[in-house]
Amino acid sequence: MVKRISILGSTGSIGTSTLEVVSLFPDRFKVVGLTAGENIDKIETQIRRFKPSIVSLASEEAAKNLRDRCEDINVEVLSGMEGLIRISTIPEADIIVSAIAGSAGLIPTFAAVKAGKTIALANKETMVMAGEIITQEAKGKGVELLPVDSEHSAIFQVMQGERWEEVHKIILTASGGPFLKTSSEEKRKATVKDALKHPNWNMGTKITIDSATLMNKGLEVIEARWLFDVSINQIEVLIHPQSIIHSMVEFRDGSVIAQMGVPDMRIPIAYALSNTERLDLIMPRLDLAKIGMLTFEKPDLKRFPCLSYAYDVVREGGTMPVVLNSSNEVAVRAFLQKRIGFLDIEILVRETIERHKVSHAKTIEDVLMVDKWAREEAERIAGKIEGKRK
Amino acid sequence: MVKRISILGSTGSIGTSTLEVVSLFPDRFKVVGLTAGENIDKIETQIRRFKPSIVSLASEEAAKNLRDRCEDINVEVLSGMEGLIRISTIPEADIIVSAIAGSAGLIPTFAAVKAGKTIALANKETMVMAGEIITQEAKGKGVELLPVDSEHSAIFQVMQGERWEEVHKIILTASGGPFLKTSSEEKRKATVKDALKHPNWNMGTKITIDSATLMNKGLEVIEARWLFDVSINQIEVLIHPQSIIHSMVEFRDGSVIAQMGVPDMRIPIAYALSNTERLDLIMPRLDLAKIGMLTFEKPDLKRFPCLSYAYDVVREGGTMPVVLNSSNEVAVRAFLQKRIGFLDIEILVRETIERHKVSHAKTIEDVLMVDKWAREEAERIAGKIEGKRK
Repeated sequence: MVKRISILGSTGSIGTSTLEVVSLFPDRFKVVGLTAGENIDKIETQIRRFKPSIVSLASEEAAKNLRDRCEDINVEVLSGMEGLIRISTIPEADIIVSAIAGSAGLIPTFAAVKAGKTIALANKETMVMAGEIITQEAKGKGVELLPVDSEHSAIFQVMQGERWEEVHKIILTASGGPFLKTSSEEKRKATVKDALKHPNWNMGTKITIDSATLMNKGLEVIEARWLFDVSINQIEVLIHPQSIIHSMVEFRDGSVIAQMGVPDMRIPIAYALSNTERLDLIMPRLDLAKIGMLTFEKPDLKRFPCLSYAYDVVREGGTMPVVLNSSNEVAVRAFLQKRIGFLDIEILVRETIERHKVSHAKTIEDVLMVDKWAREEAERIAGKIEGKRK
Repeated sequence: MVKRISILGSTGSIGTSTLEVVSLFPDRFKVVGLTAGENIDKIETQIRRFKPSIVSLASEEAAKNLRDRCEDINVEVLSGMEGLIRISTIPEADIIVSAIAGSAGLIPTFAAVKAGKTIALANKETMVMAGEIITQEAKGKGVELLPVDSEHSAIFQVMQGERWEEVHKIILTASGGPFLKTSSEEKRKATVKDALKHPNWNMGTKITIDSATLMNKGLEVIEARWLFDVSINQIEVLIHPQSIIHSMVEFRDGSVIAQMGVPDMRIPIAYALSNTERLDLIMPRLDLAKIGMLTFEKPDLKRFPCLSYAYDVVREGGTMPVVLNSSNEVAVRAFLQKRIGFLDIEILVRETIERHKVSHAKTIEDVLMVDKWAREEAERIAGKIEGKRK
């Protein structure tokens, strides 16, 4: 049976890899909907190749432009949040790939869950901001949340045929990013270019900066807490610079089961799309003899405080993780715009968290209000830091 | 429900570890039968502690001695092959732990399979000598063969929840033994003491010498071929000196799933006894940050020809693996008796194989006839080598 797929964020890194998997298995997967931001050239190419019946772009202006270009094709072009939600919920789709970067993925992903769609989840911010709300809604609707992040996919793969009550802990591996061995003094002076040099993975800019601060791993810790319904005390992070072991599970008998592979997102994407089938992907095989050596070390929380903030906000609970995520998004953008320095990211996040009065978010609207507050507060702090630097 | 266990070879390394697991879970496991060779002191202690109703020793003389010592206890003491088979097949046992070292385990293990018992298999020689006969009998009787060897247990653990048709290959790890980096010249002069220094595992003498020649890995390759019904071309060996990854499976999507742990046989034993439950073993946890580094390299078949002989005999098929195993047992004993040198082991095995005219073994009797021929031939060659050395 052909699975029909909608991809939210089709021109990004995960979206592009997802379409590569689809193109390898045309008998198994059919694209029905795509959404993108402003990259009209790329989505036009995707439309001509994969023939979705409906697409949506961020702005009506971009949509209009695309409609003109695609006059010869039978495709409906929408725009804005309305278009995004329409594609997240279209009856034709069996599975929604949630691959919009950042908190912008929250509303369409929640809409897809409410519509009872199977979700291939690459947008970790959704779970960080609204993990409790999303997982409860998913449970109520009987919706499957299939992880696409390589770490969470690793845990999900390992847990096939295992029992959660026999798990002692889950161990998320982290490459440590480009600044694993960099001194604070050097990090203070780090440029955007320095921070974008990820040793192993080729990813979007936001996630690459998050890898340099280890905030990415912090967000993954929070995602794991909700996705797998485990206690924060059962989640450990281990630095593994080669990124070959994608994550592991330690069981109460002392056994540790690990999932490994070359760093290629097509593996976890194919596993999610097929829902635990292992498709015959034609790609370079892992050659451990050639790699020769895998190394491991404990993360240094003093040098990477963003990781410890993630544990802190989960322990404090309520709306705290929202503030962590939203302030971080503001901080990373300010850094990419060269308004603040690299080490200012962690300062900005900490200060925003410290100013937040925690509450309990019952609805997505509650989450969005806290998100708005955190962004304004973080912007204000960013402006202050920027002023001092001048 | 309490599982009732008979242990064949209870005073050996695996037998002792099995009883440690039993003692940790007295509500789950009950020992009903034990067998041993000549170690009367140790089996008496085991009888007083675990209260089996029936035991058997190798010789009637030893049995008589034990009967005198155990006059105050309600235990039946048998001897010889008859006693061994009786304990392999007693109706009271749910599971038979086959842990007699070497080819001596073949007949009782086959008897247990014929009696429809679940087998926890630690005796790899059984599968090397009669893999086809044993697996066919097991299939016919609906008998489960649960691996105890750490490598095969690793594969078995990984395959829970996976599909064999999605497997690309299985990768057995090997420590490389004490002579991994030793020159041929030094190996020629190696003493029994040198060869018994295994870097990671504390095991019996036969298997420790087999680890030094890599014949142990060769036997495991053959065991894996039958236990998992995979082609010999799908089995790879990878040198991994730290013995932390116990083995791995590579799937056709490029994912590699590995089972790791501290080198402690209680983990695979408990997994087999409980039949894929993970019991709460109280033992040191694997600490990868502390270990720091795992290394891997291809095995050097020129320096470790015994490993390539194992592949050769499987490809030739029929009775060839019997000859490999039997001649190796003779060679290892001759080495332990200081009659031949360390490098003579591989010479002796190769020469015996070369003299064998392969046939098809249909029954255990066929296997035993080839075993007898190979032993006599190997003994003759050992005598010749011994003569030259003098």
